Amino acid sequence: MLGVCYYPEHWDESRWETDARRMRELGITFVRIGEFAWSRLEPKRGEFQFEWLDRAMDVLAKAGLKIVLGTPTATPPKWLVDECPDIIPYDKDGNPRGFGSRRHYTFSSQTWWQESARIVEIVAKRYGKHPGLVGWQTDNEYGCHDTIRSWGPEDLKAFKQWLRLRYQTPDKLNEAWGSVFWSMELGSFDEVALPNLTVTEPNPAARLDFWRFQSDQVAAYDKMQCDIIRKHSPDRWITHNFMGFILDFDHFKVADNLDLASWDSYPIGFVEKFPFSEAERNRWAETSHPDIAPFHHDLYRGVGRGRFWVMEQQPGPVNWAPWNPVPKPGMVRLWTWEALAHGAEVVSYFRWRQAMFAQEQMHAGLNLAGLDELSPGGLEAKQVAEELAALGSLPETGKAQVALVFDYQSYWTTNIQPQAKDFRYEELCFRWYEAARRLGLDVDFVRPGGSVEGYPLVLVPCMTEIDGPAQDALDKADGVVLIGARSGSRDRNFKLPENLPPGPIAEMTGNRVYQVSTLRPGVTHSVSGQVTGEGTRWREYLQTSAEIVATFDNGDAALTRKGKVHYLACWPDEALLTATMKLAALEACLAMTEVPDHIRLRRRGDIVFVFNYGSEDWEAPQGVDFLLGERTVKPQAVAAWRAQ
Amino acid sequence: MLGVCYYPEHWDESRWETDARRMRELGITFVRIGEFAWSRLEPKRGEFQFEWLDRAMDVLAKAGLKIVLGTPTATPPKWLVDECPDIIPYDKDGNPRGFGSRRHYTFSSQTWWQESARIVEIVAKRYGKHPGLVGWQTDNEYGCHDTIRSWGPEDLKAFKQWLRLRYQTPDKLNEAWGSVFWSMELGSFDEVALPNLTVTEPNPAARLDFWRFQSDQVAAYDKMQCDIIRKHSPDRWITHNFMGFILDFDHFKVADNLDLASWDSYPIGFVEKFPFSEAERNRWAETSHPDIAPFHHDLYRGVGRGRFWVMEQQPGPVNWAPWNPVPKPGMVRLWTWEALAHGAEVVSYFRWRQAMFAQEQMHAGLNLAGLDELSPGGLEAKQVAEELAALGSLPETGKAQVALVFDYQSYWTTNIQPQAKDFRYEELCFRWYEAARRLGLDVDFVRPGGSVEGYPLVLVPCMTEIDGPAQDALDKADGVVLIGARSGSRDRNFKLPENLPPGPIAEMTGNRVYQVSTLRPGVTHSVSGQVTGEGTRWREYLQTSAEIVATFDNGDAALTRKGKVHYLACWPDEALLTATMKLAALEACLAMTEVPDHIRLRRRGDIVFVFNYGSEDWEAPQGVDFLLGERTVKPQAVAAWRAQ
Amino acid sequence: MLGVCYYPEHWDESRWETDARRMRELGITFVRIGEFAWSRLEPKRGEFQFEWLDRAMDVLAKAGLKIVLGTPTATPPKWLVDECPDIIPYDKDGNPRGFGSRRHYTFSSQTWWQESARIVEIVAKRYGKHPGLVGWQTDNEYGCHDTIRSWGPEDLKAFKQWLRLRYQTPDKLNEAWGSVFWSMELGSFDEVALPNLTVTEPNPAARLDFWRFQSDQVAAYDKMQCDIIRKHSPDRWITHNFMGFILDFDHFKVADNLDLASWDSYPIGFVEKFPFSEAERNRWAETSHPDIAPFHHDLYRGVGRGRFWVMEQQPGPVNWAPWNPVPKPGMVRLWTWEALAHGAEVVSYFRWRQAMFAQEQMHAGLNLAGLDELSPGGLEAKQVAEELAALGSLPETGKAQVALVFDYQSYWTTNIQPQAKDFRYEELCFRWYEAARRLGLDVDFVRPGGSVEGYPLVLVPCMTEIDGPAQDALDKADGVVLIGARSGSRDRNFKLPENLPPGPIAEMTGNRVYQVSTLRPGVTHSVSGQVTGEGTRWREYLQTSAEIVATFDNGDAALTRKGKVHYLACWPDEALLTATMKLAALEACLAMTEVPDHIRLRRRGDIVFVFNYGSEDWEAPQGVDFLLGERTVKPQAVAAWRAQ
Repeated sequence: MLGVCYYPEHWDESRWETDARRMRELGITFVRIGEFAWSRLEPKRGEFQFEWLDRAMDVLAKAGLKIVLGTPTATPPKWLVDECPDIIPYDKDGNPRGFGSRRHYTFSSQTWWQESARIVEIVAKRYGKHPGLVGWQTDNEYGCHDTIRSWGPEDLKAFKQWLRLRYQTPDKLNEAWGSVFWSMELGSFDEVALPNLTVTEPNPAARLDFWRFQSDQVAAYDKMQCDIIRKHSPDRWITHNFMGFILDFDHFKVADNLDLASWDSYPIGFVEKFPFSEAERNRWAETSHPDIAPFHHDLYRGVGRGRFWVMEQQPGPVNWAPWNPVPKPGMVRLWTWEALAHGAEVVSYFRWRQAMFAQEQMHAGLNLAGLDELSPGGLEAKQVAEELAALGSLPETGKAQVALVFDYQSYWTTNIQPQAKDFRYEELCFRWYEAARRLGLDVDFVRPGGSVEGYPLVLVPCMTEIDGPAQDALDKADGVVLIGARSGSRDRNFKLPENLPPGPIAEMTGNRVYQVSTLRPGVTHSVSGQVTGEGTRWREYLQTSAEIVATFDNGDAALTRKGKVHYLACWPDEALLTATMKLAALEACLAMTEVPDHIRLRRRGDIVFVFNYGSEDWEAPQGVDFLLGERTVKPQAVAAWRAQ
Repeated sequence: MLGVCYYPEHWDESRWETDARRMRELGITFVRIGEFAWSRLEPKRGEFQFEWLDRAMDVLAKAGLKIVLGTPTATPPKWLVDECPDIIPYDKDGNPRGFGSRRHYTFSSQTWWQESARIVEIVAKRYGKHPGLVGWQTDNEYGCHDTIRSWGPEDLKAFKQWLRLRYQTPDKLNEAWGSVFWSMELGSFDEVALPNLTVTEPNPAARLDFWRFQSDQVAAYDKMQCDIIRKHSPDRWITHNFMGFILDFDHFKVADNLDLASWDSYPIGFVEKFPFSEAERNRWAETSHPDIAPFHHDLYRGVGRGRFWVMEQQPGPVNWAPWNPVPKPGMVRLWTWEALAHGAEVVSYFRWRQAMFAQEQMHAGLNLAGLDELSPGGLEAKQVAEELAALGSLPETGKAQVALVFDYQSYWTTNIQPQAKDFRYEELCFRWYEAARRLGLDVDFVRPGGSVEGYPLVLVPCMTEIDGPAQDALDKADGVVLIGARSGSRDRNFKLPENLPPGPIAEMTGNRVYQVSTLRPGVTHSVSGQVTGEGTRWREYLQTSAEIVATFDNGDAALTRKGKVHYLACWPDEALLTATMKLAALEACLAMTEVPDHIRLRRRGDIVFVFNYGSEDWEAPQGVDFLLGERTVKPQAVAAWRAQ
Repeated sequence: MLGVCYYPEHWDESRWETDARRMRELGITFVRIGEFAWSRLEPKRGEFQFEWLDRAMDVLAKAGLKIVLGTPTATPPKWLVDECPDIIPYDKDGNPRGFGSRRHYTFSSQTWWQESARIVEIVAKRYGKHPGLVGWQTDNEYGCHDTIRSWGPEDLKAFKQWLRLRYQTPDKLNEAWGSVFWSMELGSFDEVALPNLTVTEPNPAARLDFWRFQSDQVAAYDKMQCDIIRKHSPDRWITHNFMGFILDFDHFKVADNLDLASWDSYPIGFVEKFPFSEAERNRWAETSHPDIAPFHHDLYRGVGRGRFWVMEQQPGPVNWAPWNPVPKPGMVRLWTWEALAHGAEVVSYFRWRQAMFAQEQMHAGLNLAGLDELSPGGLEAKQVAEELAALGSLPETGKAQVALVFDYQSYWTTNIQPQAKDFRYEELCFRWYEAARRLGLDVDFVRPGGSVEGYPLVLVPCMTEIDGPAQDALDKADGVVLIGARSGSRDRNFKLPENLPPGPIAEMTGNRVYQVSTLRPGVTHSVSGQVTGEGTRWREYLQTSAEIVATFDNGDAALTRKGKVHYLACWPDEALLTATMKLAALEACLAMTEVPDHIRLRRRGDIVFVFNYGSEDWEAPQGVDFLLGERTVKPQAVAAWRAQ
């Protein structure tokens, strides 16, 4: 189903009814509102103006739209910031980040928690039982604009408290952090300093704890909002709209308190943000890379325990990337169908109409700026709505063939201590995902410790700390398991394991890593054997009791196999990764459909979808009845048929 | 005529007479002094030492030199800064910018205005009627070293006051800025914050007002100095020495109070500063690009309402660029003649003699460091002086064939909201200028709203806000008009026009822009039709009622014509720009002389000048009598003849 | 002989005896301890815990190891920093650099001097006469992490005092600095500001004095420690472990108070830090460039007046470079032999065992992390120990054929005022050194003013200020002298010499530099004559009375010869540098052995060593008896024979 984001406060009230009617005419079911409206709801402390929102919700509900209401905490108004400057966040250099845009608060401020609870309670009480209201969105895009970690006095205060609870005594903290190194020992928790602004790098164990602390705060803050909402708004679901490639907090933990996950899908901007090559950036500039949106759909389906929305879908050019191309004709439709194919319950476009003013005035909407006239993206949304109506309801999303274990903490660990400047956890996972999907496979994302039973193939690109539950889950895997380098390389306290990496899975893999080499871009180590390619960036020296499947050019083990468990002792280049993935999939007896770089397949229930991101046609299989499209899948086209 | 910049305070008094005599012998008429001498004039508050300057002016005047005196406000002394720390500017990160170089003041400080008025009045009173004095220079190089905008407490105070005057009520400000977006609404002017240090980008409308405010302050500050000078120094003219490619304030508004404009011409340093390609940088490293100095001559002739000087002319290598090559032999002479050809009244070299000490000791002068011995540049200046004497007075500068509308605010707007990272207004104007001059055309610069009547060809590379006067001026154009993309795309308050861009000129052009795509360097959109090439960086999607002259490869209009008004819906590459310029010039019935990239022509009255920046000869037309040079124009040579 | 760095405080006391025994078994003689142990020695002010160190020293001494004890001043503990925040350094932006790593103090703080003296005295008193103790290391790696210059209030206070002593009156300071320029004159020493945070560049003379001041402080601080140690620890030597390519203080002056120099040799990290080309970086990624370690061995042999150690030798991959490759097999042995060949008395590995925790847990040791098991580097160290035992004691290091005058102040001067962005003094000296060593020559480093008598060839790549002693030393040179551009270009006060550069050596060289051109990477000036190649980066225009050996393409002198003194008027590319070096060596009648880029020769007494950094064999001369290796020198191999 389709939805849209709407800002009644941006338009004259006289236009609301027309807007609501035209939404319905387009085929829109859901409308999200209110998430940035604090200054309109409470222009001065305690002086509330709810009437306009009352009327807006009534107009929308009356038109038959189902309303999702956002809590307005992403944009505290100026009077509040001036009154309570302790809510302001600080950047890593220790400078305050001021008012004038959004997300200008730190999760560490107790004042902020009180003020958040206050406004959420007031809004939840007033609208919690509105008949048009079906669900809530908490806040907006946690972590956007680097807003998870703040480095101010409130943060230090809260960090000390978090450490006190975790470690109980300074001695235990010193022991855990290895503070004896460089005389970093602390005599009391009062002596704790933030792990920034040091002369050279701070203790990585301290940094990891600081990252964990800030991540924990996000989950607790969101839970606080959820608890208040649930109290005052029974029978409505709650979600949060996550962003793409923000890894600064553990999304699984936040979603533990949510009914479903959602995310904001802006595929084209990521072409500039993700570390693609220049050639890739040019190739995908006007369509996005064909795994960018799907990677997140699958991730957030996992985060949402099977349930997710696209809360904001790019409907045309946006405003925030270094360059903002118009998507190629057909892409807005393609992205919408693709989200649905990956299991999205709703795809909600951002936004109904392009704004005339302020930061996002160059961001397209379904309607042209200020006008009641559909934009090119609006016309494509209309087509999807019609196709959806024709097709009827979609089948349930099933279990994929492949599980990918995704671990936020491994991003933190490798980011804090990269050892190779270009060791980027998110890039590693993305490339493993891409390799699987180039074989036509579907992928589920699983958190560390989540069950991987029943998956023919389990991918663990890198899991630095393998705790008890994570180890148990791997032990219970009944499919082929492919584990990447650097896994099991740190214990809970950022220490090396006593038996050297891969620590807890030494027995499972048969390996011991006695040395690590990191390689600059111009240097690679060749791999050959049952798979061939180059090791890059990170290369481990193994002692192994496992079968050696491939070796480095000096004869050392590069890929090992012990039972169904494979271990790849390097960051693979594309050739090596593809070969390794194929080998693992073959061993897992998976049926593969190798597709070119611009084609992707995806199953939802018994429907097979195909998406063409490129500029050349692709021929779908013969002898099937097409629910969407036709056998020759044109550039930017979608096709779908029932699997036979 | 020629001039020179001189610092008597840098040399022992015993050398002044020799210096003055040698200046006259070289052929120098004007000498600029005093603009950095505050600490010598007032070593402590209220303790003045004028005697040395009295003597220096007498020596110079006695030698027959005409004196231009600078007000010393670019370098407040340390005792003043220590006494009045509120004059100190703040950088964009909110840190004070300290004493130890120059331009360490903010225009927002009331203390600074009082201190400036005090010293200007004292100096103007003492020297205003000195018989050797012919003119004044206010301050020095406004905006150099990024000194227009300051971000400190004094700036916030002054900005609030400026906003109060502009908007009267907070509601009007909120409405103008679209503050409802992201709850940015302000309850009073006291709540205004500086538009920096925000979590993500601040409101572009707030930023534009901050830029306008700072620009306005510069004009008002300069007017304050002018008013004082005029009171005490009758019958002397006043100028300010502007810099190149500083666009942070509206030079036209400052010059409204001046008798003539002047600028400081350092062509070679711009090879590194302007966004040239590496190939261009290597090609022009030792000569500068052949449009760098002329672009500014023509701009400042416009700024000065027809009257301008080169106040500082590069006489050899300088010290402040990443690399500082010796200009090729002949270039100092070429630049001098070129300035005169473009209408300069005086070319004044910086400086008489290379300094032995401090920041600019590697900056060449007409004399070698510390010596009474002409440098290579000094010898070339001498040659020009002799040639000038032989040639007699130059004819008046006439109206050019081409008017280019140059708009500082469009730079601000596009810089604040680039939408394409490489949308650089100054680069756009420079390339349009270059294209016209490659056709052998002369160009006048006109401010928005300035009359373009009588120009066969009018160029508007980009004018984001087209206000009433600007629209009237375009309406009255009687030549061919070529308007570039993004024109008319914002109203006074940074809002999109209600009829979509190009807003006020929708009727004039026949166009409506319903969508914009910005393209990374590796992506272009082909254009063909009556002109051919590639659209880059910025591409508009038009609905048009005009004639379509060329289309993008999907058939959309790229270049339109409605009567004499042409609209180019993209940032053109060199081929497309050249073809479009030629088409427009042909329609304007202009006689063109296409020149290679290293040759430029320029007329002053009936004299045609040619300048060779390259390494290959160029043949001037046959059958003319050469006033300068000869038919074969050698590398770095100049030729001139009377048009027939 | 071999040594090792050991941290008893990182390991359970039960392991110390085994560690000591295994060190001896490996062939280790010296063990350095204690330099980061302050928080363990004094956990709270005045509460000392020496017993653990007493026991550790006893265990080590009893095993027959000779102990080097470090003063723990590189890591002041948190209680001290909290109690005395004035010891904290400030970065160039004026922000404090906090606790949490190391070197978090400023040399300007008087509090810090008192606290340093206190802890050094206490440690020196307790252990100064311990029978196992043979020497001391002061502090650790002065200057590492950019810690020589600090920009805080304590620094300003100390700088004012230093200036007062140097200049006596503000007038003399103003005269020396040329403060009249830009009204920078100061009325009193109280008005002095730090030369940072200015609007544009600060006065270079002020900056040079600030750099001199901070350098002087390091020497004085180290002397303070030495004086205390000598008082309480008779008959022990003192050293400091310098770092590579840290040029922010004058190492010669610090070493004037030391008994011997030492340095920390991490050859591979410098592949990323030194301005090599990308091709060079790829080529040498896993071995280092063959002149990186030798350059420093030779420099520190000079700094130590003939005596030096490698205090920390890289034993495998490290953790602090952007990439940290495993050295190719054989490199740890090669580096060790190479240090000995260059005259090192001891090579001491860092560290005995890889740490399990904290910042350096990815830094290899001689033993695997946490284990009693030799790492690959440990096995190579063992091999060296055996070879050393077989070979017996090495001969004395003799005088080299070539002297290179190395001048820290010239780095400061050219860094403060580069004039060409890529004028890097350290790169210039390195390339001259490399050119000499590619001819098979040995090099001694000499400080300015140090005697160069007896050297057949003297190299002066650049000496900006040539003071009296430096000029005297050059006058007394009896070999061929090759002087590079920019020499003699500044006087003591950063002023240009009155006779223009090369100032004091105008007579000696026969040259006057009347103009300087600096060239961007894409622009070069060709040189031909007796030598051929390209001038890059820096090119001087000479008037000369000397013989012209080669000219630029416009006929100007590029290389001149007056008697035995050669002057090269540009930064040479590789071809020109090689040709010039060869010409000079030929004139000096030196026997040369040209070697390929991966081979280096080095003599110690009558032993000739050869080192192979590359991937191809090299054939040593026939008819010699090999002390080490064999005639075919394999990649990463070492060979040695007695010169005949």
